[in-house]
This record gives sequence, C-alpha cells and structure tokens, in this order.
Amino acid sequence: MSLIHQLLGDETYDPFLSMINKCPILSTPTDWKETKDSHVFISDLPGLKKEEVKVEVDEGRVLRISGERKNNVVDEDVDDKNTTWHRIERCRGKFQRRFRLP
Amino acid sequence: MSLIHQLLGDETYDPFLSMINKCPILSTPTDWKETKDSHVFISDLPGLKKEEVKVEVDEGRVLRISGERKNNVVDEDVDDKNTTWHRIERCRGKFQRRFRLP
Repeated sequence: MSLIHQLLGDETYDPFLSMINKCPILSTPTDWKETKDSHVFISDLPGLKKEEVKVEVDEGRVLRISGERKNNVVDEDVDDKNTTWHRIERCRGKFQRRFRLP
Repeated sequence: MSLIHQLLGDETYDPFLSMINKCPILSTPTDWKETKDSHVFISDLPGLKKEEVKVEVDEGRVLRISGERKNNVVDEDVDDKNTTWHRIERCRGKFQRRFRLP
C-alpha cells in the first residue's frame, strides 16, 4: 500500500520521496550562465513538451519557470488490479522556479 | 568561486548539490511497475540518448541501469572569462541504479 499512499497524497508516509517532489531544486534542476550579452537558463524537465512550460518575467526582474508534470502512466494504471507498483520516484505535480536577474 | 569549486570537485563546498549528484534516487528517479506479463521501468534521464544508457541484468536477477551524463555546455564555458555561472544544479557524472527483480 505504500506507493498508493503516496499517490493519494498521504505525504507523511515517505518524507524522502515527498521532499523530492516539493523541493524545486530537486524537481527542476537548472543551470544558469551569464555571457557578455545574454542570460542562458537550462532546466531538466523530462517528459514535458515546450508548450507545457511557462516562462515569464515578473516585475521586470524575476524570471519564473513553471508548469505541471502529469504522470499519465501512473495515473492510468493505479486502479488496475493486475498492476503492482514497486517504485514511484519520478516527480509529478506543479513545479516553479524563480530567479532574480542581476 | 563557489560554482567553480563544485566543477573542480571540491565537494565539501556545497553538500546539498553534491548530495543530489551522489544520490541515485535523486539523479535517476525511476518508476517500476509489474503487470501480468512484464516489468516496466521508466527512468528520467534528460539529455541522454538511448545509446548512452546501458541496461543489463546481473546474475539473472538484478536489473542495472547505468551511464554517464556529460554536461558539455558547462565544460566548454567554464574557462571562458566572459561567462559567469550563477547556478549549476543539473546532475553530471556517472550514474547507476540497481533493482532486484522478484
């Protein structure tokens, strides 16, 4: 039942996996470099299409990268009694990173 | 100098980012489901090509997923004096996961 508990939101069950999903650095690791004439951000967002990621600049100085990871493979099978889940570690749900530009 | 230290392997500098790279669950999160007639593993390995990931079964019962993440963007620019790195969070280096099959 442990993985089902995680899926159903019983977040006290496995604080370690819950932390991965909640910590923005872990769920959306990002490299940021500044060159002579640009800022370059490279984020790992596996499984997401370009149009599923929102990139905005708030208040003129804060870059925000956000979106939502759907885990359809898990969602479709969770009620299937013929399927046993041994591990569910990949991040799911909403994510957001904010970077204050210099 | 902090990011340079990380690149050069001074791992005492930022234990948090160092932990991300070293912890297999964080660097290679994997969902594993068992259906009536198969085991299905889904790993997040952003930026890697299929041929860069090795999948083996050891001793007949342990599935091993391994490889190496190269971060060419960082490697090429690290000595460029016109480039400032503000964040280097994406995993790099060798990774390995092992799963004992039932």
